[in-house]
Amino acid sequence: MGRIVCFGELLLRLGAPGRELLLQSPQLQVHVGGAEANVAVSLSRFGHDVAMVSTVAGNALGAHALAELRRHGVDTRGVREDAEGRMGLYFLTTGAVQRASEVVYDRADSAFANSTAADYDWPALLQGAQWLHLSGVSPALGPDVAQATLAAARAARALGVRVSFDGNFRPKLWQRWGGDAQAILHELFAQADLVLADYRDIEVILGQRFEQADVVARVEAAAAAAFDAFPQLQWLACTQRQTLSVDHHALGALLLGRDGTRAQAPVRQLQGIVDRIGGGDAFAAGILHGILSAFDADATVRFGLAAGGLKHSIPGDFNPVSEADVLALMGEERFDVRR
Amino acid sequence: MGRIVCFGELLLRLGAPGRELLLQSPQLQVHVGGAEANVAVSLSRFGHDVAMVSTVAGNALGAHALAELRRHGVDTRGVREDAEGRMGLYFLTTGAVQRASEVVYDRADSAFANSTAADYDWPALLQGAQWLHLSGVSPALGPDVAQATLAAARAARALGVRVSFDGNFRPKLWQRWGGDAQAILHELFAQADLVLADYRDIEVILGQRFEQADVVARVEAAAAAAFDAFPQLQWLACTQRQTLSVDHHALGALLLGRDGTRAQAPVRQLQGIVDRIGGGDAFAAGILHGILSAFDADATVRFGLAAGGLKHSIPGDFNPVSEADVLALMGEERFDVRR
Amino acid sequence: MGRIVCFGELLLRLGAPGRELLLQSPQLQVHVGGAEANVAVSLSRFGHDVAMVSTVAGNALGAHALAELRRHGVDTRGVREDAEGRMGLYFLTTGAVQRASEVVYDRADSAFANSTAADYDWPALLQGAQWLHLSGVSPALGPDVAQATLAAARAARALGVRVSFDGNFRPKLWQRWGGDAQAILHELFAQADLVLADYRDIEVILGQRFEQADVVARVEAAAAAAFDAFPQLQWLACTQRQTLSVDHHALGALLLGRDGTRAQAPVRQLQGIVDRIGGGDAFAAGILHGILSAFDADATVRFGLAAGGLKHSIPGDFNPVSEADVLALMGEERFDVRR
Amino acid sequence: MGRIVCFGELLLRLGAPGRELLLQSPQLQVHVGGAEANVAVSLSRFGHDVAMVSTVAGNALGAHALAELRRHGVDTRGVREDAEGRMGLYFLTTGAVQRASEVVYDRADSAFANSTAADYDWPALLQGAQWLHLSGVSPALGPDVAQATLAAARAARALGVRVSFDGNFRPKLWQRWGGDAQAILHELFAQADLVLADYRDIEVILGQRFEQADVVARVEAAAAAAFDAFPQLQWLACTQRQTLSVDHHALGALLLGRDGTRAQAPVRQLQGIVDRIGGGDAFAAGILHGILSAFDADATVRFGLAAGGLKHSIPGDFNPVSEADVLALMGEERFDVRR
Amino acid sequence: MGRIVCFGELLLRLGAPGRELLLQSPQLQVHVGGAEANVAVSLSRFGHDVAMVSTVAGNALGAHALAELRRHGVDTRGVREDAEGRMGLYFLTTGAVQRASEVVYDRADSAFANSTAADYDWPALLQGAQWLHLSGVSPALGPDVAQATLAAARAARALGVRVSFDGNFRPKLWQRWGGDAQAILHELFAQADLVLADYRDIEVILGQRFEQADVVARVEAAAAAAFDAFPQLQWLACTQRQTLSVDHHALGALLLGRDGTRAQAPVRQLQGIVDRIGGGDAFAAGILHGILSAFDADATVRFGLAAGGLKHSIPGDFNPVSEADVLALMGEERFDVRR
Amino acid sequence: MGRIVCFGELLLRLGAPGRELLLQSPQLQVHVGGAEANVAVSLSRFGHDVAMVSTVAGNALGAHALAELRRHGVDTRGVREDAEGRMGLYFLTTGAVQRASEVVYDRADSAFANSTAADYDWPALLQGAQWLHLSGVSPALGPDVAQATLAAARAARALGVRVSFDGNFRPKLWQRWGGDAQAILHELFAQADLVLADYRDIEVILGQRFEQADVVARVEAAAAAAFDAFPQLQWLACTQRQTLSVDHHALGALLLGRDGTRAQAPVRQLQGIVDRIGGGDAFAAGILHGILSAFDADATVRFGLAAGGLKHSIPGDFNPVSEADVLALMGEERFDVRR
Repeated sequence: MGRIVCFGELLLRLGAPGRELLLQSPQLQVHVGGAEANVAVSLSRFGHDVAMVSTVAGNALGAHALAELRRHGVDTRGVREDAEGRMGLYFLTTGAVQRASEVVYDRADSAFANSTAADYDWPALLQGAQWLHLSGVSPALGPDVAQATLAAARAARALGVRVSFDGNFRPKLWQRWGGDAQAILHELFAQADLVLADYRDIEVILGQRFEQADVVARVEAAAAAAFDAFPQLQWLACTQRQTLSVDHHALGALLLGRDGTRAQAPVRQLQGIVDRIGGGDAFAAGILHGILSAFDADATVRFGLAAGGLKHSIPGDFNPVSEADVLALMGEERFDVRR
Repeated sequence: MGRIVCFGELLLRLGAPGRELLLQSPQLQVHVGGAEANVAVSLSRFGHDVAMVSTVAGNALGAHALAELRRHGVDTRGVREDAEGRMGLYFLTTGAVQRASEVVYDRADSAFANSTAADYDWPALLQGAQWLHLSGVSPALGPDVAQATLAAARAARALGVRVSFDGNFRPKLWQRWGGDAQAILHELFAQADLVLADYRDIEVILGQRFEQADVVARVEAAAAAAFDAFPQLQWLACTQRQTLSVDHHALGALLLGRDGTRAQAPVRQLQGIVDRIGGGDAFAAGILHGILSAFDADATVRFGLAAGGLKHSIPGDFNPVSEADVLALMGEERFDVRR
Repeated sequence: MGRIVCFGELLLRLGAPGRELLLQSPQLQVHVGGAEANVAVSLSRFGHDVAMVSTVAGNALGAHALAELRRHGVDTRGVREDAEGRMGLYFLTTGAVQRASEVVYDRADSAFANSTAADYDWPALLQGAQWLHLSGVSPALGPDVAQATLAAARAARALGVRVSFDGNFRPKLWQRWGGDAQAILHELFAQADLVLADYRDIEVILGQRFEQADVVARVEAAAAAAFDAFPQLQWLACTQRQTLSVDHHALGALLLGRDGTRAQAPVRQLQGIVDRIGGGDAFAAGILHGILSAFDADATVRFGLAAGGLKHSIPGDFNPVSEADVLALMGEERFDVRR
Repeated sequence: MGRIVCFGELLLRLGAPGRELLLQSPQLQVHVGGAEANVAVSLSRFGHDVAMVSTVAGNALGAHALAELRRHGVDTRGVREDAEGRMGLYFLTTGAVQRASEVVYDRADSAFANSTAADYDWPALLQGAQWLHLSGVSPALGPDVAQATLAAARAARALGVRVSFDGNFRPKLWQRWGGDAQAILHELFAQADLVLADYRDIEVILGQRFEQADVVARVEAAAAAAFDAFPQLQWLACTQRQTLSVDHHALGALLLGRDGTRAQAPVRQLQGIVDRIGGGDAFAAGILHGILSAFDADATVRFGLAAGGLKHSIPGDFNPVSEADVLALMGEERFDVRR
Repeated sequence: MGRIVCFGELLLRLGAPGRELLLQSPQLQVHVGGAEANVAVSLSRFGHDVAMVSTVAGNALGAHALAELRRHGVDTRGVREDAEGRMGLYFLTTGAVQRASEVVYDRADSAFANSTAADYDWPALLQGAQWLHLSGVSPALGPDVAQATLAAARAARALGVRVSFDGNFRPKLWQRWGGDAQAILHELFAQADLVLADYRDIEVILGQRFEQADVVARVEAAAAAAFDAFPQLQWLACTQRQTLSVDHHALGALLLGRDGTRAQAPVRQLQGIVDRIGGGDAFAAGILHGILSAFDADATVRFGLAAGGLKHSIPGDFNPVSEADVLALMGEERFDVRR
Repeated sequence: MGRIVCFGELLLRLGAPGRELLLQSPQLQVHVGGAEANVAVSLSRFGHDVAMVSTVAGNALGAHALAELRRHGVDTRGVREDAEGRMGLYFLTTGAVQRASEVVYDRADSAFANSTAADYDWPALLQGAQWLHLSGVSPALGPDVAQATLAAARAARALGVRVSFDGNFRPKLWQRWGGDAQAILHELFAQADLVLADYRDIEVILGQRFEQADVVARVEAAAAAAFDAFPQLQWLACTQRQTLSVDHHALGALLLGRDGTRAQAPVRQLQGIVDRIGGGDAFAAGILHGILSAFDADATVRFGLAAGGLKHSIPGDFNPVSEADVLALMGEERFDVRR
């Protein structure tokens, strides 16, 4: 089984301890993240051969981001270090009760956002790869890196490497530089075999609205439109999240196939949430793992949801659980101490 | 718009970390509080010009209390430093599950409790003030400071400064020195334009029982009696709290006006509570903000309850949220990460 | 009233901070525990004269375990120090949401597990004792300590000291050395006046199945069989636990007497659990306290359940609450701050 | 060998972390101390049977102080709990470089300071005791406790229990209540077999100046005067401290006997000091241990100084080192890792 | 006595805990700093009326920087908030033994660096001011802020406000944008009444070398040249630092006046250094305090050096010591605990 | 340039925070170490291709040890996981002033100590290797692993891989199982091209004493004897350490060659030591780096000593400094902040 290559930005999260407001006490807790890196770590912990492609600052912050990926077994030899660049940062205040969590981004002009298509030698970077995983965050960061992302997807397609794409539509980032989100995301969807995408992503890309009463019905309609529009596309998966309070969400999931396959995982009640960030990436990794492992659609979507659910119990952006951990949760719904 | 002056004791909270028992591990986490100071900080964060009047110990502990108020923008120039005095302290063990939180007070003989009416030059201290905020904790601390509190209320009334009074009836403190709570609180209610008070406070002051089956009905009856007894009084506000477990409360609120206005905010389910202390003061500040901002009664009581609800998610006695934070919660009941 | 002697292993718990995965950050938080030591600490905090008998490593780790017992008033003069031995350790990852807590044991070849019957001079150690408390963990640790446990029970019986025995059946430990769990536990049950045991323990010991539809009925049937099989036995108590999520359990309890007494405590909803480990030992100590204090059966089982419930709110293995703390919870189901 | 009884106040130290200024970050680290309790803990760790007599607040703070003494093996059954009293506190900022450490006391009106001679039943408390250890801090706390201290010394003398007295002259405390330090300390010196005292203590008590050029000569002259004035007195010991910087002291010691014995320990260079508080008490305990163990004078003073020196390396007021630890330092001046 | 206005960037320091390498453990400790802010805080703590003028990010990070200044009594009403801007950051690894401390800057494109002369209304901002304090860091940050700095100095001069200027020459920052350091610093020196500057700063500005064998002689020659070149200049002060190891520096200081005054403070041995950053700013504030308080030159330079020396014992960029703290160090060179 | 393979045990260090006694507060800080792993990490950070060969427990503790090696770029694919095994642990109390640091080992019966020669397929594991690094700790752990170590050395020699051997003589470990240290270490020395060894190691191996007055002379005599006895041996290197206090050591170093080369590095004064453990391994890695990089003998020994000196400033067993960091220290002896 070949390797999976993930391309995207590595970010440092600087978070307030516990449920404090940002800088209420003079400490920040650091985690490494980034939508695509989160997927890379999950897949590596599930047992796959995974490589990251990115650009980091050539300083102690960039070195830390790479060290954390290596710690989880991800190959970082394809990550560039830009001696003059800076790392993208985000500051997190974790909410509680009815106070929502808040992110303050400080990622403009990062080494990754300033990298260009010419910085990445895709034929070399994709050698031995079976899949390339991308997300909609990267092209939203600026025109150069948008071209770099498109170049990656085209190279993969040209080399016969399958493409997984997570929509991750971020209007604020696109507006910052006035990028044509619809056109760029359209091309990326067109290259993809698998998309992680909600009906809202597809509304943006196809310029079309899905107004069924029920969220699941909207997703199904959107998927149908996507399968029509993008002949390459085989699979579409997404979660349905309901936020009852900051610490209590209900999470369901859907996996739809071009061949009419439709698998839906029963909703999980996630109470006492520890860290919700990275939940979507953990789900994406779970879906990819199911597909890579040739699970059937039902097992795949239940695996994805269980993986995503576990993420909500773990501090940090990564979801470093093993396949056995996920299967254990799927196997029994018993929550006492394991000795 | 004029300034708001708050008069009361500044306390240091020394709390066990997390959900540990007191001194289970050898660490204490320090927060500054005090019923009136909590109101001062909230109002300052809502954008008002706020000054604190108090007496602190003339040592590093007193200096810290002032520094924390200044950090939140409160003017501390009216706070006396008593070189020989000590700070009031309280030790907090935060509960969990079915183990209630516990406070051990160590506030006897504090610099504030030992201060007298002669220590405060009210005409100077109230210069430019629109409102004076007091609470029933101060007069409960001893005979000298009880007189000082009465002097403050009388001076405000004489100078045309409106008075806000939070009942905060503490029988244990009154018993300690045998003060005549009913008489003293009666005079303070008589000076007030706004009282934060439950039917239980009014039972004490008017020597009368309200035994309606329903809590809300009892409050309404008590308010009617108060409007009769105190011709100066315009507004009465209070919360209705139900404790389902240590970490899960249901909180409602009521605002009643002499003119018959009656506004009730829908109950908020507060699950996963982080820190309940100061919730009442946060509500009081929210009500004062509504009145100062000329919100209507309904908006005022909903603002007060939302502010009070947010407090339950923030460690420490203060509620340093902005008006925008409170309005955001009122605007949507969605609890996912804000980016 | 005489003293209670507890015999069993002292363990060090090394736990990840908060809800982190083990060694996610490079810190471990240390607690002392052990099923019988947990009972000893509870009983000491309830006001009894309690002594521990055990063997610890003769180094700083063993010294710490003894210091922690002394801190809670337990007499440790009967604990041997083995200069060449090691302490039993366990590493704990506390779960959250739907991720179960996990224990990694590192207790093989501990100083206690290697101790033998000859190491304990029971006539001296039991001087002045009214009760001896044992559990099924000790004999599971190896053949020598199994004999030492049997010797302790026999000595108690011979000296007229009553025996309390907590089943605590641990198949993995028994399998490690191929011990005959059924025979050894059978003899221990035969010596006991009180057993803390579920129908599952009795199934093992009597080689019989209880297949009533309802858990409570199964316990009742098992108790009846036990009273038949063990003429010495007077009381059997156990909890019924339902795990709704890692942080939310529902806990009930039953106390059954040879004389037909049957007391059942109403189920407690334990939400926002802090630390579930030691909950069973806290219940056992509560039951013993009820019996030692001549509470009636109903008060005893409600005291046991309230004590066990409180444990879920306290970090660490011990439940250092006072009798007054437990009675306060039994007296009111109100969960606001106590000042 | 009989037991040693120590009488004095138990204090809680609340200190800033590391080398921070007090409340620079919102945390305090808690240690239990008190001059006589420090001696009690040291002696217990050296293997003696030690009991504390004191009065603490009947709350979680007082309970913690007792628990910490028990942790080190000190018998606390002779400590009274005063349900209405408060604990004496002190706030510590540890200095560095050329910034001296600072103590802010908050010990006025403590449960101990308010206790009286009638509160202590000395014949019972001294049963089985060989020595009573007192210090000059206790009588400085107020008239009642001064009488209680005198009563303790007189009772010991009457019962044939030897008295050890540490001068610990604190002018600020005496001035607070206008006590006659000279008269009271004179009587306490008159009861003592051993005094820990500098020439400055003796200047106060005898109303006499010692103006030799050299510190050691001043101590010798003062000791000679003390042996003349107090026929009961057998031994006088003290350290000579030179503060080169906050973190680097040079410490010598002298032990002088009525019989002309004179032993002087070579100066120790204490660099990189961790915590200097309790250094004098650790020295006192070392001297007492030497006398109790019938070391010769030279071994006694070198043991005392080595014990005092070790204290400077340990956070907190206590010096919980064993006799073997002290002997190891005396045996070799090698400072590499011991494996 | 009028107020002092400080103009410059506010930075957040994110530092590794203790002596760890950056991100060796996943935590950062946050301090607020900036050369001119450090001076502002010192002067406020010395009792002066101090205002900061700057531009911060309009987010929680900028709000924290302002809150910290207010905590120390600095007036922050003259600080602009730039909703789109970012805060300047620096990451600090504190060294030890022979491993030097390291700063990684992440301050490019900060809200302050992007601010322009038009953003500051100097006649309003300098109302009531006696002195304006600037440093050479601000103009090094970019062309716009260089013009803003020059405009500040010119405005002060025009309004009769005296100017204090700290050279703080940073070649790396100037090279980044190719600014003409010599010309810009020349004009700033020309406006100043007091400069904090070494011979190396003056070499840059006057394009001249001072090659005396001795550092002090080089400073004297450079000062003579500066007094010739800048007729406005009255005072030049600087320290002489020798680094014996990372934790042990020897620090001397010199104050030279146009009128021939020459005062030199005896070298301080600073062993066991806690935090060396901000030492120069603490010295500058001490010198300004001496001049503002009309100390003589000798007292001024000794006060400056003692203040600078104290800074080395305090974590963080600020030196929040009082005038009494500095005088206490100057008054005695004794370093034992103050009670 | 080929890879370096390191063979030895991975240990977890569990250390008390700061300068506390072990379990003085209930926390342990975790570092990964092991003599050979420390060398592996250093060499990886110096830029070499490094692989570890070992056996770890197949649980979260073993996984953490591997993750930490990967973090520093070491290839861990050659490390076995033993599902039933345990990790070797050591508990560390870091000393201060005159209190020496103490290690309590808990490494008996570890997964590595129980591994055998048959567990390692050396031809595969040494593929592409230029050097194999071993130490005298491994064979001291027990008879099986002693044979495994000999097998490793013989395999390397047979495959033309050069051998580096660090004496690390540990009498206590050898005594535990009664191994013939002299014979086994003799064979390992006989296989080595480079030994890190003191005259004391050679005394053991050759059964000969070196009694020159001077340590350096003893090392030279011992080296001469070793070059005679072991014809394969090309280089011998070692440090000379003098412990002035726990926090202040003086460290020199010597490198001697079979060809008569003699290089001696000037003594470094290491004051304010942070963590001395791993200093010898850091030196060994520095010497290996010099040899691998074809530095001359003088540059090699100075590089080794500078690397070893830097280790004393870094918490933990590893020395993750770069070649540039070491060269920077060698290039200038200036210790101020680097910006």
